[in-house]
Amino acid sequence: MGGSLALAIRKKKLAYHVTGLVRNENTLQEAIHLGFADEFYLESDFLKKDLWNKYDFIVFSLPVDLTCKKISLIPDSYTGILTDLGSTKREIIQAVENRFTREHNYISSHPMTGSENSGAKYAKEDLYEGKLCILTSPKRLKTEVKEKIQTFWDKLGSQTIEIPAEDHDEVLAYLSHSPHIISSLLVTWAGTNPKVKEYNQRSKIPLSGGGFRDMSRIAGSNPEMWEAIIHTNKSDIYKSLKEFKIKLEELLEIFEKDGNSNFWKKYFEKARDYRNQIFKL
Amino acid sequence: MGGSLALAIRKKKLAYHVTGLVRNENTLQEAIHLGFADEFYLESDFLKKDLWNKYDFIVFSLPVDLTCKKISLIPDSYTGILTDLGSTKREIIQAVENRFTREHNYISSHPMTGSENSGAKYAKEDLYEGKLCILTSPKRLKTEVKEKIQTFWDKLGSQTIEIPAEDHDEVLAYLSHSPHIISSLLVTWAGTNPKVKEYNQRSKIPLSGGGFRDMSRIAGSNPEMWEAIIHTNKSDIYKSLKEFKIKLEELLEIFEKDGNSNFWKKYFEKARDYRNQIFKL
Repeated sequence: MGGSLALAIRKKKLAYHVTGLVRNENTLQEAIHLGFADEFYLESDFLKKDLWNKYDFIVFSLPVDLTCKKISLIPDSYTGILTDLGSTKREIIQAVENRFTREHNYISSHPMTGSENSGAKYAKEDLYEGKLCILTSPKRLKTEVKEKIQTFWDKLGSQTIEIPAEDHDEVLAYLSHSPHIISSLLVTWAGTNPKVKEYNQRSKIPLSGGGFRDMSRIAGSNPEMWEAIIHTNKSDIYKSLKEFKIKLEELLEIFEKDGNSNFWKKYFEKARDYRNQIFKL
Repeated sequence: MGGSLALAIRKKKLAYHVTGLVRNENTLQEAIHLGFADEFYLESDFLKKDLWNKYDFIVFSLPVDLTCKKISLIPDSYTGILTDLGSTKREIIQAVENRFTREHNYISSHPMTGSENSGAKYAKEDLYEGKLCILTSPKRLKTEVKEKIQTFWDKLGSQTIEIPAEDHDEVLAYLSHSPHIISSLLVTWAGTNPKVKEYNQRSKIPLSGGGFRDMSRIAGSNPEMWEAIIHTNKSDIYKSLKEFKIKLEELLEIFEKDGNSNFWKKYFEKARDYRNQIFKL
């Protein structure tokens, strides 16, 4: 996400100078090799040398828990604008409000984009084009900062919408976090079935068609990032998954009744309607 | 599926003459307009005029329940080869074995391909290229017919694998049928959440990212076909969904314990492994 953002900023000429911070030496070498920013630092060097004030705009592109830790380190003297690309908001907003008891320049962003691949080598300069970016404002945010960040995402080709932290985390539990768990559950459940294993081993090409492939795509994503997402949105994910289980039990009852021959056609038609509503088709 | 097969057969020059049968007048006009076969009939006309023996190869591309009905209508005098593209096998194989108490030319096919769109206008001549086609043999099948059908799929670019009806239906419950229900459940569950509805209406572009979009793609597929699939594979689908529910309950317990901070990272890593195994990555 961060690498793609650097590429997009340079493509749209939104900054004179872009610096990439990375967490370890290997990534540093890879990032320099790929050259998606003008300059690179190890995060530890940046912090040691206290380079914050060299920059007028800083974006945290990190798992949510690490983003919260970085927020606590922002020096009082820093006057630039700050944002992040975090997938959950309650904890980030709490961290910002704890950090700043005065007016500040931090607004949280959540671009609804990405892929199952993480790492600098998958960076794409058009990742943000035509995408939605959710903005969440902490208390005591300066109004002009919100406008600047809206303009920033707008210039990158993203649409913005404001959603408060609580609502963001509930909506995202349904549209992203719990589906991620369900996708992982799906491959675990199918992948451990003895017959699936047996015939899949015998077949030269994978035994599965496109539907299962699509549904399991996100089960391949960055486990570290997803652990942080689950940890920072436990209650909404738990609530939504419990509701999912109840709805699944209702379907199991349909099988147990063994009647209702027209049930499934109607159910699938209605599902198609919900899908069309969600995707504005 | 049938339209794409006609296109593929003509592209690969596997037949001198391809006739398309359709179920109603509207589809007939559309099929003639698209022209993917040399000639078209209404199915009812074909049956009334008893044209079976004009053809040396017949493929049923219909929902499974209708395929079974057609199998019961195959005349004793018919000497050509027969197959279908059915998604479940137990009932089709039963219908074939009921129909033929002597040696016969019917072997069932299940090409693992398709899309969420059905209908002649979505036909694609390369739909079968590089795909897997599962073959299921009924009792009393002539050996040379199996070889001919293997060659047929081979020439269309598909790999074949033989799986008996019982195993086919269990494996497909896991890799296709139950995932289809889970995908439909997913859009129903998310699409009825009030906050999801509210913010999705407010947003100019859909509130969901690519993961949810992928997972819900198949929820848009042909409801009639899917009803027939559910009806003809009830027991395996029920069994597999019940197991899915139990595995979901185990995850809900992790949330209830609220500990095990390292659980999710390991769970997602393991899920990625299962996914890689299934897709031979």
